[in-house]
Amino acid sequence: MTDKHASFVKRYLEVSRSKNSILCVGLDPAVPEQRKENVLANNDRLAFMKQIIKEVSPFASVIKINRQYIIGLTNEQIADLNKLIHRNGMLSIIDHKLSDIGSTNASAIYWIKKEGFDAFTFSPFAGNIGEATKEAHKNDLGIIVLTLMSNPESSIQKETKIGNKSLYIYIAEECRRNNSDACVVGATGNVTNIDLLNIKKVVGENILLLVPGVGAQGGDAENIIQVFGKNLMINVGRSIIYSDNPAEIAENFQRQFNKLYSNIM
Amino acid sequence: MTDKHASFVKRYLEVSRSKNSILCVGLDPAVPEQRKENVLANNDRLAFMKQIIKEVSPFASVIKINRQYIIGLTNEQIADLNKLIHRNGMLSIIDHKLSDIGSTNASAIYWIKKEGFDAFTFSPFAGNIGEATKEAHKNDLGIIVLTLMSNPESSIQKETKIGNKSLYIYIAEECRRNNSDACVVGATGNVTNIDLLNIKKVVGENILLLVPGVGAQGGDAENIIQVFGKNLMINVGRSIIYSDNPAEIAENFQRQFNKLYSNIM
Repeated sequence: MTDKHASFVKRYLEVSRSKNSILCVGLDPAVPEQRKENVLANNDRLAFMKQIIKEVSPFASVIKINRQYIIGLTNEQIADLNKLIHRNGMLSIIDHKLSDIGSTNASAIYWIKKEGFDAFTFSPFAGNIGEATKEAHKNDLGIIVLTLMSNPESSIQKETKIGNKSLYIYIAEECRRNNSDACVVGATGNVTNIDLLNIKKVVGENILLLVPGVGAQGGDAENIIQVFGKNLMINVGRSIIYSDNPAEIAENFQRQFNKLYSNIM
Repeated sequence: MTDKHASFVKRYLEVSRSKNSILCVGLDPAVPEQRKENVLANNDRLAFMKQIIKEVSPFASVIKINRQYIIGLTNEQIADLNKLIHRNGMLSIIDHKLSDIGSTNASAIYWIKKEGFDAFTFSPFAGNIGEATKEAHKNDLGIIVLTLMSNPESSIQKETKIGNKSLYIYIAEECRRNNSDACVVGATGNVTNIDLLNIKKVVGENILLLVPGVGAQGGDAENIIQVFGKNLMINVGRSIIYSDNPAEIAENFQRQFNKLYSNIM
């Protein structure tokens, strides 16, 4: 594995280059009671997650697990998952959307570190991007800041203004100013190519983009790859994890992204 | 206990009236490794929490537990805590600051319901107040929406505008329009009396206020009680749970709030 004290950005660029993959697999295990379709055959979230981790590992650089799907698992169970992810040559992100004040964010970061993740997502409703980034880096964790989401209602991130500036631009600037590791930007819905160019202009070359919404949610990877090159983690979740052949689908996405990249560059 | 299918607002007003207390105790157990002062004597978060629940129960109507302090506890352990809270005549809130999109929020709500909480907090960075409120109420859970926080950086909630409207006013309006149960409004820092009056004007009589920041964080309860009367949960955390005598301090806060109320009314 990469040097644990190197920044998340550096470690990701190393892993993704050596694996030739910008694919991040969103591993969000829904138990049968939760949803009718596209769910686990039984309540064993851990077994399901371990199987997917092993199957997609040749084709993905990152596993992203959403906190809202693993509530109730113990620190040890999650640490075991992360060890498996690392043994299989990938990095792990907890999609936590942490959104609290200083000392409480620090508590989350303490437990996230103990669980063995490499980075976490942060929701900047309460500001605190600078403070949370410092606390993350003190713990050798990457911080990935929600910047412009693609669900219809998150249009408030575009429509709200600070002065003449859209909130999402302000957030991207705060990320650059505080050396946060990555921004989350949606691939569908209300995110336009102009938004992508605006964000690229602000964050430059040192900040990654994590892009959910490709696959089941219908996002288009082409524009994003055109703007961000390989400073990019493209997340695909349900289309892979609930397919009959997760490895095959993961491989298809890896190839598709690499092909788009080589067409453009 | 109150009728499980009654709204959270109704159940809170019933409990707080019968206990004559608008005190909510913030139960956030920091283990010794996390912080130097004001922490548990050991790593047994559960034992600490159970003891506090029993000690403060004569004086408090609500226990609020922050998710970022109970990461790693199992569904069963948390369900046991909630049973203890309910047996002691209180309601329980998970301070989750949920901040995701539809199906993922639904997953969190599924687990929160299984854990036995009565309500959860919601961070509306991605919008979705309407959708999340519907999902909460389908599960007989209350939803408490971050509206105007008091940490310095959360001033973006005041400074960002939708049209001519501050973001926090827009959020309060969304809460009213969607019948959300409560708004979170800070008691310190950048929350002025005018902000409180603005919020009251929007939310009217049917939405509660959850106010953190009293006690250790130095907030002043008087203005808030003057504006919101008893449609109010005032949260006190560290000043109670890390004191030498949590019961006594809780009783002091209960009395103080009731005295302020009777002075004003």
